Amino acid sequence: MSTFRPSRRGVLTGAAVAGAAGVGAGLTAVAARPGQATAASRTVAFHGARQAGITTPQQDSLVFAALDVTTSRAGELADVLQRWSAAAATMATGTPVGGPGGLGGAAEEPPQDTGEAHELPAANLTVTLGYGPSLFDSRFGLADRRPAALEELPPLPGEQLDPTKVGGDLCLQACADDPQVAFHAVRNLVRIGRGVVRVRWMQLGFGRTSTTSSAQSTPRNLMGFRDGTANLKAEDTSDLDRHVWVGGQGAPAVDQEWMRGGTYLVARRIRMLIEAWDRASLGEQERVIGRAKESGAPLSGTHEFDALDLAKTTAHGKPAIDVAAHVRLAAPQSNGGVKLLRRGYSYTDGLDGATGQLDAGLFFIVFGNDPAHQFVPLQRKLGSQDALTEYLKHTGSGIFACPPGTASGGAWGEGLFG
Amino acid sequence: MSTFRPSRRGVLTGAAVAGAAGVGAGLTAVAARPGQATAASRTVAFHGARQAGITTPQQDSLVFAALDVTTSRAGELADVLQRWSAAAATMATGTPVGGPGGLGGAAEEPPQDTGEAHELPAANLTVTLGYGPSLFDSRFGLADRRPAALEELPPLPGEQLDPTKVGGDLCLQACADDPQVAFHAVRNLVRIGRGVVRVRWMQLGFGRTSTTSSAQSTPRNLMGFRDGTANLKAEDTSDLDRHVWVGGQGAPAVDQEWMRGGTYLVARRIRMLIEAWDRASLGEQERVIGRAKESGAPLSGTHEFDALDLAKTTAHGKPAIDVAAHVRLAAPQSNGGVKLLRRGYSYTDGLDGATGQLDAGLFFIVFGNDPAHQFVPLQRKLGSQDALTEYLKHTGSGIFACPPGTASGGAWGEGLFG
Repeated sequence: MSTFRPSRRGVLTGAAVAGAAGVGAGLTAVAARPGQATAASRTVAFHGARQAGITTPQQDSLVFAALDVTTSRAGELADVLQRWSAAAATMATGTPVGGPGGLGGAAEEPPQDTGEAHELPAANLTVTLGYGPSLFDSRFGLADRRPAALEELPPLPGEQLDPTKVGGDLCLQACADDPQVAFHAVRNLVRIGRGVVRVRWMQLGFGRTSTTSSAQSTPRNLMGFRDGTANLKAEDTSDLDRHVWVGGQGAPAVDQEWMRGGTYLVARRIRMLIEAWDRASLGEQERVIGRAKESGAPLSGTHEFDALDLAKTTAHGKPAIDVAAHVRLAAPQSNGGVKLLRRGYSYTDGLDGATGQLDAGLFFIVFGNDPAHQFVPLQRKLGSQDALTEYLKHTGSGIFACPPGTASGGAWGEGLFG
Repeated sequence: MSTFRPSRRGVLTGAAVAGAAGVGAGLTAVAARPGQATAASRTVAFHGARQAGITTPQQDSLVFAALDVTTSRAGELADVLQRWSAAAATMATGTPVGGPGGLGGAAEEPPQDTGEAHELPAANLTVTLGYGPSLFDSRFGLADRRPAALEELPPLPGEQLDPTKVGGDLCLQACADDPQVAFHAVRNLVRIGRGVVRVRWMQLGFGRTSTTSSAQSTPRNLMGFRDGTANLKAEDTSDLDRHVWVGGQGAPAVDQEWMRGGTYLVARRIRMLIEAWDRASLGEQERVIGRAKESGAPLSGTHEFDALDLAKTTAHGKPAIDVAAHVRLAAPQSNGGVKLLRRGYSYTDGLDGATGQLDAGLFFIVFGNDPAHQFVPLQRKLGSQDALTEYLKHTGSGIFACPPGTASGGAWGEGLFG
């Protein structure tokens, strides 16, 4: 384990983050505007104790990119990370890369900004950075800075991974209420990184499928069910400390100080076998999920937010919530109290050429401070016992360490390379 | 040429359409709310003299599907078209397929609606149907009903077509201000058609790149330029009659009466060579387009909506608008007065596996009543002379005949099969 080296310029230190008591950029925005819809605020500050885009109320569109580093010089990578954070901070205010004049400039030079988001609102853009396990191999001298929690996911049941949609040295999660704004952000960061990084895989998402604030109503996924009813909310600060933030109160011990105040992102591209699902009866769909389709109420209750009663039986003596129902198997009380912060988006990538069926489903992003004891055992169980697994196939996967936020004037990478 | 057979139940006849003087469903909506933004009205009527989704102010999201008919029984196809129009009319009001209870029903049956758009606003959903040339082969007895204008596009310069993104017996263009609403519409129609039709290819689009109403400001495409400044507007009724509507005043003669009041849709998936474009200087980009990047003004003028002055020269005696500039070559005055109604969307489908570059660009939809003398010669010229062609590659293509609208109680297919 390496000794924590204080950051070079302005990144919040572990102590400062701990003192901030779980209130970061995104979180502040939520707390300041309870009851307001996502679209009302319009900008989310880039700088803060936490990275934006984690507890930020979920925006409508996602562009997720996993990237590989193509240089072997750590300094070049650190430079790109610094330029990325400056650009991300600028774009978060709705300003072109390079400042207000970034669309123009000298006729002999390419414009600094590609321009397609010019005059569009900032649309609550957030860009969240993560480091993949492969970044900590021998190339950049970072091997002794790898947190133990950042290890490649083991093979898991229910997956049939497409090798072109797995892994990455880095990830960028851009979320915005306008897809063109989210795309613009990733495109411009990729452009800035040319010669140092290249995109490994990419995923677009639409129509959020999680609720991350009690001000948001619960959206529906492509199975037509409300999704995210029981998600952690930005307001649940003590649960976030315990389950999400590295070094939060009640969280596992911190082995790499540069990760204090950060979290781990697990991304799973979960294809839904839409055609099979659409042929299933309403009763079968509700049994599989464990909730009523129309109301979202657990089959043990009558309202969406009723607590699950896993012991309740029907008049016929059967469990009201089936033993293989998704909500039973995924519930914290069935998993030693594990709670996850989800940020899911629907996706469709047109047709699966092999079968002629729709390639559509859920791009599932989950944040937690201990993936090996949170996501991994949960998916082991779901992948082997969950009735829903018959209708799903995990086709893409990645795990990334998201460092804490940066103070104004600070930059991504300072904690890691500092 | 076949004789026009009056429709079976309620589809507007040629005479009725002509009497409607170019004012159809979408058009009425525009005329009734001048100056209002697209999002303000929220529903667009399905029924009317014209199909919705043609002159309707352009929504933010597109799901376009080309489909093949897999049955050889015309009656089965006609039945699907009838069920499609009922479903499309229902969804246009924000109601589930099958009515308000379509999400539920008997526990033993699959729900009639897949549910993911339930409780979302109608988001100005429009679904527009088109028939491809291949529908008029020997399978359905429709050979003598094919309009002469509906012929496969010839090979064109600048194209490098992906055979998996070409053609189709039918197309469905779903547009909405919410991508989940547009996806839901196509998915449910495909589901209704199972066993009779199957999806051949599909394209998602975001961030409209055309202006179809003077109430809309001009958006930017992924080249960062304003796109659609000179597009036909819904308010330009005499130009629409002449250039867009089959049988409109000043339009070519009608050879198939069932198409009177309809139009032809040409779809082109135009990949932008983003990386090369991003390396081009501002001066080069502006020369290629013929407009200023920031303002959108033609290089012969100072404001976005200034008319092109193709004769204007600079102080150095060169044309202000380059001889190979896109706006010069595409302008009506350079093309015998041809005007097109465009409905373009940006797209990205992640990475091109062969090159590792972004597969992104413009999904270009254009409506006109005479494609062989409108789109085809224009693309012949652009593909060989336009400076922009160096940065583009047409990778997908289709042409479809969009019939006129249907009256309340009428259905798609009645004019064709009636």
